[in-house]
Amino acid sequence: TARRLHGIPPTVFSAMSALAVRTGAVNLGQGFPDTDGPASVLERARTALLEGRNQYAPGRGVPELREAVARHQARHHGIDLDPETQVVVTTGATEGIASAVLGLVDPGDEVVLLEPFYDSYPAMLQMAGAVVRPVTLPAPSFRLDVDALRAAVHDGTRLLLLNTPHNPTGTVLTDAELAVVAELAVRHDVVVVTDEVYEHLVFDGRRHRPIATFPGMAERTLTLSSLGKSWSLTGWKVGWATGPAHLVDAVLAVKQWTTFTSGSPLQPAAAHALDHEGDFPLALATDLQRRRDVLLDGLAEAGLAPRASEGTYFTVTDIADLGWSDGAAFCAALPERAGVVAIPLQGFYAGDAGRHLVRWAFCKDEDVIVEGLRRLRGAE
Amino acid sequence: TARRLHGIPPTVFSAMSALAVRTGAVNLGQGFPDTDGPASVLERARTALLEGRNQYAPGRGVPELREAVARHQARHHGIDLDPETQVVVTTGATEGIASAVLGLVDPGDEVVLLEPFYDSYPAMLQMAGAVVRPVTLPAPSFRLDVDALRAAVHDGTRLLLLNTPHNPTGTVLTDAELAVVAELAVRHDVVVVTDEVYEHLVFDGRRHRPIATFPGMAERTLTLSSLGKSWSLTGWKVGWATGPAHLVDAVLAVKQWTTFTSGSPLQPAAAHALDHEGDFPLALATDLQRRRDVLLDGLAEAGLAPRASEGTYFTVTDIADLGWSDGAAFCAALPERAGVVAIPLQGFYAGDAGRHLVRWAFCKDEDVIVEGLRRLRGAE
Ligand SMILES: CSCCC(=O)C(=O)O
Ligand SMILES: CSCCC(=O)C(=O)O
Repeated sequence: TARRLHGIPPTVFSAMSALAVRTGAVNLGQGFPDTDGPASVLERARTALLEGRNQYAPGRGVPELREAVARHQARHHGIDLDPETQVVVTTGATEGIASAVLGLVDPGDEVVLLEPFYDSYPAMLQMAGAVVRPVTLPAPSFRLDVDALRAAVHDGTRLLLLNTPHNPTGTVLTDAELAVVAELAVRHDVVVVTDEVYEHLVFDGRRHRPIATFPGMAERTLTLSSLGKSWSLTGWKVGWATGPAHLVDAVLAVKQWTTFTSGSPLQPAAAHALDHEGDFPLALATDLQRRRDVLLDGLAEAGLAPRASEGTYFTVTDIADLGWSDGAAFCAALPERAGVVAIPLQGFYAGDAGRHLVRWAFCKDEDVIVEGLRRLRGAE
Repeated sequence: TARRLHGIPPTVFSAMSALAVRTGAVNLGQGFPDTDGPASVLERARTALLEGRNQYAPGRGVPELREAVARHQARHHGIDLDPETQVVVTTGATEGIASAVLGLVDPGDEVVLLEPFYDSYPAMLQMAGAVVRPVTLPAPSFRLDVDALRAAVHDGTRLLLLNTPHNPTGTVLTDAELAVVAELAVRHDVVVVTDEVYEHLVFDGRRHRPIATFPGMAERTLTLSSLGKSWSLTGWKVGWATGPAHLVDAVLAVKQWTTFTSGSPLQPAAAHALDHEGDFPLALATDLQRRRDVLLDGLAEAGLAPRASEGTYFTVTDIADLGWSDGAAFCAALPERAGVVAIPLQGFYAGDAGRHLVRWAFCKDEDVIVEGLRRLRGAE
């Protein structure tokens, strides 16, 4: 294989989900729900299949979806977008990340990102030849260390890759933290690419505020989001990138060659979800908060001290609480020991700081979570 | 945007289809049919949407589709594949090309490809930093110039990017021509990546023989194909890459980061197409041959001397026959002059050799082709 791939391991999610299937373990690893999204969205896709929506969608995405994305951003976030030039549909946020990185980062460019990081970020950054400057969210609070961020961002920074609500930690950056990000980005003229796929999945009365809404940020922020997490349709891989035309064009310039387009009959259904099932993500967040609490209680009973996630599908624990030190070893043994799959955070850190951290998903059905916890307790 | 993109124009297909929509012209440009594929395949997708097939498919693709691809390759081509290790599902053949190039080509590596070439090849090769060695299929026969190929391939060649049946020319490489390709690949230890999306769409009693079936080629050939062209579902973007595990792994190593997976509910339907609608592509080829002939006759009446395509969706003409010399200018004027869209071949050549060549699609419904031809004649 080509040198740009050397040393990049296979995505941990594939390995762990395959392990769950192989061992019959309860999958509290990969972030996908057990229950599919709204029936009316599925029905819209079923209709689209019979309505001749089966040939190439435009590279930017079907107009009705781009318009629905613009309406969504206006309604929820007060962001004004021209659907013709400021929205591009992607094959999930994953393609948004890949295209933004290949489209904006030259070899040697410095990119600042929050650590722990979703594993596709460092993989794509390596493929682009970036110099990665991680800013660690220190355990156990996983709050943004604004001094570390200030030290990392400078005039030579090409890109700041943000992610809030944050996977894997469940941190939702506060307005005060985001204000520092914005201030630094504006001061040093840095482009921000922000993965906000969990934008609706926040708890305890919190609100997610997009970084694009801070002063001076609209013109320098590329925002990535998707249908998958908010509408419980992760396999559809319908996402979108929004922002100023020049950043959207950079995504399009890459994705026209990586996939050209995708999911034609699913795109009108995604538009339907945004326009007509706008309450679904809010109800999902309420329900997820309840399932989070079930998981938190159960993990605590199992001897771990989990953190109350502020958003996302996930919570992180320190396995030192159980006398373990190596998360990869812990997670490799867990299916045998307990019949449960969880995700070690090693791969989400450049160094060793995440060695003892393990991520648990609460996007699963309640009975699945309860069964996973029962097994965990039994494995003592 | 990043330097890897500099000088790469937007894909000609987006621009020309947008022009067709804007002007109400008959679209004989972008290669997609007016009529969708088999009803039973659409029905299978409709069922999958209600069967909980809406979350992430495995990165390699759902097992039933990988198994169906293996059966398809055995049945049609006598190729034996292990569906666990030798098949990976991609977001159309486009993602197969992108992933193979990023996964196999280092900066400075030499890549031989047939010219004219599909526009994503040179774009991805530039992004990978390849040195491109085009071997021109000389007009008007567009046959492989085996001497030119012999001169281009040497021990330092990293990859040979093949495409047969060939878009845009409609050439189907003969067994004798393919034998030379195979002989050179084996002699110089070159990997062949071959785009065979038109494998079933060949005419006048021809058969397409995959390069992977030639002696010594199975272990060095990555074959790309898809559902879109053969089953008239271009917008689903379900494709696959097959070959030895190490080449399939190179594709997976990239696509796990570019999209991870895609089209979960469409994958079981694609498996259904391969297993239960195996005759569809053969009937489609018969029908396409008839439509080809309608187009050829009409273009001849309009004063052009089209070539009888041996396969694909397309035929190429020389606009010098009409006293024009610049295909881009011809195609830019055609919607106004005649209410028709066609594709200039400039972008499919590294140099100027395709300046006077224009591609016409006959995958459209017969009445659409007839109307396009009526308009062309009226525009004299
Ligand atoms: C694309 S597979 C990973 C799914 C996910 O977002 C996660 O588990 O973090
Ligand atoms: C992916 S858009 C181009 C469709 C096609 O294969 C062609 O027109 O050549």
